[in-house]
Amino acid sequence: MKPTLNHFFTKAKKMAESGDKKQILNFTLTSPEFPPPIWVKNEINKVYNNSFSYLPSGGDFILRQELANFYSDKWNKNFKRENVFIGTGGKEVIYILLSSLLEKPGEVVIISPYWASYPKMTELLKGKVKIVRTFAKKGFYPDMEKIAEAIGKKTKAVIINSPNNPTGRILKEKDVKFLADLALKKNFILICDEVYEIYDYENLYVSALKFFNKNVFCVFSISKTFGLCGWRLGWAIAGENITKKMIDIQSEITTCANALSQLVFRNLYKNPKKLNKYFLENKKLALERRNFAIDFFEKKHIDFIHPEGCIAIFIKIPKKFKNGFSFASHLLEKQGVSTAPGEIFGEKNYFRVNLAVSLNILKKGLDIISKYY
Amino acid sequence: MKPTLNHFFTKAKKMAESGDKKQILNFTLTSPEFPPPIWVKNEINKVYNNSFSYLPSGGDFILRQELANFYSDKWNKNFKRENVFIGTGGKEVIYILLSSLLEKPGEVVIISPYWASYPKMTELLKGKVKIVRTFAKKGFYPDMEKIAEAIGKKTKAVIINSPNNPTGRILKEKDVKFLADLALKKNFILICDEVYEIYDYENLYVSALKFFNKNVFCVFSISKTFGLCGWRLGWAIAGENITKKMIDIQSEITTCANALSQLVFRNLYKNPKKLNKYFLENKKLALERRNFAIDFFEKKHIDFIHPEGCIAIFIKIPKKFKNGFSFASHLLEKQGVSTAPGEIFGEKNYFRVNLAVSLNILKKGLDIISKYY
Repeated sequence: MKPTLNHFFTKAKKMAESGDKKQILNFTLTSPEFPPPIWVKNEINKVYNNSFSYLPSGGDFILRQELANFYSDKWNKNFKRENVFIGTGGKEVIYILLSSLLEKPGEVVIISPYWASYPKMTELLKGKVKIVRTFAKKGFYPDMEKIAEAIGKKTKAVIINSPNNPTGRILKEKDVKFLADLALKKNFILICDEVYEIYDYENLYVSALKFFNKNVFCVFSISKTFGLCGWRLGWAIAGENITKKMIDIQSEITTCANALSQLVFRNLYKNPKKLNKYFLENKKLALERRNFAIDFFEKKHIDFIHPEGCIAIFIKIPKKFKNGFSFASHLLEKQGVSTAPGEIFGEKNYFRVNLAVSLNILKKGLDIISKYY
Repeated sequence: MKPTLNHFFTKAKKMAESGDKKQILNFTLTSPEFPPPIWVKNEINKVYNNSFSYLPSGGDFILRQELANFYSDKWNKNFKRENVFIGTGGKEVIYILLSSLLEKPGEVVIISPYWASYPKMTELLKGKVKIVRTFAKKGFYPDMEKIAEAIGKKTKAVIINSPNNPTGRILKEKDVKFLADLALKKNFILICDEVYEIYDYENLYVSALKFFNKNVFCVFSISKTFGLCGWRLGWAIAGENITKKMIDIQSEITTCANALSQLVFRNLYKNPKKLNKYFLENKKLALERRNFAIDFFEKKHIDFIHPEGCIAIFIKIPKKFKNGFSFASHLLEKQGVSTAPGEIFGEKNYFRVNLAVSLNILKKGLDIISKYY
């Protein structure tokens, strides 16, 4: 079995089907198990009859406008619908941007630990990956000078991710500003993966949208904020020239994001107040689990990275295992506990546990894990 | 305005919004306006609660198995779930296959007129496009010898499309067999885009699945057969090694096709008899429009390609226009009739009209078009 998220996820699913373990506890993906708002289901009936045809590439015009308004209000800007690009999840949004940037040979600067897909997408598109490492002793917080040093003539993009998956770290406001300004000065695209925007437990999160310029590209999605990963809907706020190029590419890859998802969310984003209330409730659920996990690991003297945000926790593997892959494989095969080995994120001494599950399942899982320390 | 389908589609949509034409008649995309089965809506309520999470890359296990069974029954084969790959529309399915085949430099043989995305996808993936032309005087039917001659050492794939979009031609059984055998012999992948499988008006269509081998790759989708383009769901039946590689790529691009779409169709494909009955009703609707269009153009002595299948008609442009783009642009801007210029398909003397609209709209549109001859 190769160390990819899909392999662990699929293996856990197959084990659950085969019934050879009493219960499979699945902490592999950061797929929140918090329910979406109850009003989503009602919206489906309202938009169903309009969901049959293609929508324009780049997204439904009205939803694009609503998202432009939503983020303009949130960060005090004046985005237009042309600043918004809607795709099949945040993943497709980033992939299509990279596809446009890597038309000619180029390099993408990625900070490790990284979300597994950044380097893989870059490689699929025949771009060169340049890793800037961060270190456990500094809580995996990136060094701005090292990022600046890594940027060369061939750098097309730098990818940052805050709140960070898998570490839970959040970039400081001054560092976000530094990078946004650098992107303009050095002419690269700053890809800011901010899909965990609502999971900010210490009020540290500042979107790069606050320092928006034509080279800032911020990614959001319904997967994490609404617990609707299966609905495959995400978007970017970006420069108009960028979204224009992306529309041409999307029209050749997937045409448009699912129309039913887009139309339901067109109705939801008509009422931002109601949404923001729901986001706060969701954050509260996540905070409860995150606090439980922190207390749990502190009491057991198990090393982990303090999650300021996101919905996962990055934990040091037990000493008797040689790497994250061997520990995660062991946990899955012997205990039916599916996690994500650190190798996937470029950090073999750690593994990741999704916290956005029921408290009961979380307790069971952490109990099993803690017995190895 | 560049001659892409999305540009015409989007411009027509914007014109409709702005209200500066009384009515926009949109024949640009082959998006059938026939309603999906009425039972689709009921299924949504049944599966809704299971649609929140990601599904495995490559598709829901049960739906993959059902599709394997469906096509095994239809073409007397023994496909397994591992032979099925589910994606965000037939488009993503082909794109991901090409991404896997073009990991190293290679060439894709494409027959013109072609579906607009084949060469664009290939170029996006830095593959070389080799066009094999077909000619109006032969009704744009491809010459098997010319295809065979075009295959070289770098050929990774040949793309055929039957029933063909835009020409409506259907490949003869002996030619399908010839190409399937050639793919095995010369070691390239035969990509058979058969998304119009149910629109076969003269009982000519034979799927390449009838002559399946590990190098045959057949693509289907719900967009055309169920009139659900907006739901973005398509699949391939292919060799197991191919679907395996594609799963790894999809997990980096879009993770999985929309879960709600997949789960609804999991329920629908439990009852293939009911589906086949619906397909026949849909074909009847399309046949009525196709026959109307044929009669109409014959009476007016306007040149067109006789559509044996598909849901579009490929018509020669009026003599006073220099190419399809200028005629289609004129029709849209002056008459509010949105079509697809032949340049998009590599054939500048023709333009395409979607037939799968209401008969009333079709009559209006063809009347306006015929005044230019």
